[in-house]
Amino acid sequence: MPRAVAGPEIERLVQLLARLPGLGPRSARRAALHLVKRREELMEPLAAAIADAHAKIEICSVCGNVDTRDPCTVCVDERRDPSILVVVENVADLWALERSGAIAGRYHVLGGTLSPLDGIGPEDLNLASLIARVRGSEIKEVVLAVNATVDGQTTAHYITDLLREAKVKMTRLAHGVPVGGELDYLDEGTLMAAIRSRTPL
Amino acid sequence: MPRAVAGPEIERLVQLLARLPGLGPRSARRAALHLVKRREELMEPLAAAIADAHAKIEICSVCGNVDTRDPCTVCVDERRDPSILVVVENVADLWALERSGAIAGRYHVLGGTLSPLDGIGPEDLNLASLIARVRGSEIKEVVLAVNATVDGQTTAHYITDLLREAKVKMTRLAHGVPVGGELDYLDEGTLMAAIRSRTPL
Repeated sequence: MPRAVAGPEIERLVQLLARLPGLGPRSARRAALHLVKRREELMEPLAAAIADAHAKIEICSVCGNVDTRDPCTVCVDERRDPSILVVVENVADLWALERSGAIAGRYHVLGGTLSPLDGIGPEDLNLASLIARVRGSEIKEVVLAVNATVDGQTTAHYITDLLREAKVKMTRLAHGVPVGGELDYLDEGTLMAAIRSRTPL
Repeated sequence: MPRAVAGPEIERLVQLLARLPGLGPRSARRAALHLVKRREELMEPLAAAIADAHAKIEICSVCGNVDTRDPCTVCVDERRDPSILVVVENVADLWALERSGAIAGRYHVLGGTLSPLDGIGPEDLNLASLIARVRGSEIKEVVLAVNATVDGQTTAHYITDLLREAKVKMTRLAHGVPVGGELDYLDEGTLMAAIRSRTPL
């Protein structure tokens, strides 16, 4: 066992920071020291911000987004097109699409993808609420913005079957070359999709 | 300006997390979502741990270590050899050496290295306290455990001059091949040092 270098409070802080994604044991130690060096400008505000967010966080009962109000900011935003519903795997994907500003509809967060190998079945995803939401609403198009992975595509097919009777237009994200991407680094599947969906200039 | 996806409390949390070393804007967002998903097991304890550490942290007035007591855990540890003083650039280096368990002396944290280009001169480092500490004490050996960078080596030379009259033994860390390192990936300087300091088997 290594000797104790610092008090138990600092060790505990390092251990908790190390549980954040992107921080390992070593970078957690560096982050802790960074906090210690910036006690007033960063450490105190961060403790307050985490406690504040913790106290106020709500999961939107309509779409599953994370916010400090329920229904969330997106669901109550009147400027959004109520006829478009974008289905995403998780909240991070919702935030990523919002950052891009690509579409001004509303969202539905599945909470994961179907994955028989990991024992994740339809009953583990927010599918019942999706069907209820689409049925008898003004939604005309459901965009399946799931990841281009096997599990993501399986989930997309499942949802397509599920909503077949709802008579809504179902769409999926385009496949192709990422903007700024170099062909040399792309896999055959992506190149194939990019060629197949080529557009006239 | 992107549309607001979540309440201001969450945005503020993301912004503060992004200021930690090792976390960028994107990974800070991921970390915030990770916290939100683990409200009870991680988010609440982390807020408390930061606040707790913030309230209790002290900079050791003897060596410059960060701890929740002054003098720090290392300085009051009676089992350490009082004749050995290890000079390090910063607290992270002190912690790294302690993790290795390589030496059981006490430390002196300089708080940086001499760097004329960045305007860091001798008066910006904890050098006066180092001289005072070495003079008239039981310290027999000063180990200059500074980084093997130009600034680190400049600082080591400066300290060697500074402590010349104190009649203590001055040592520095060995240069050589890192344990587990592959020769093919090492620079010429390191290989040169490793050959020059080769040891008999």
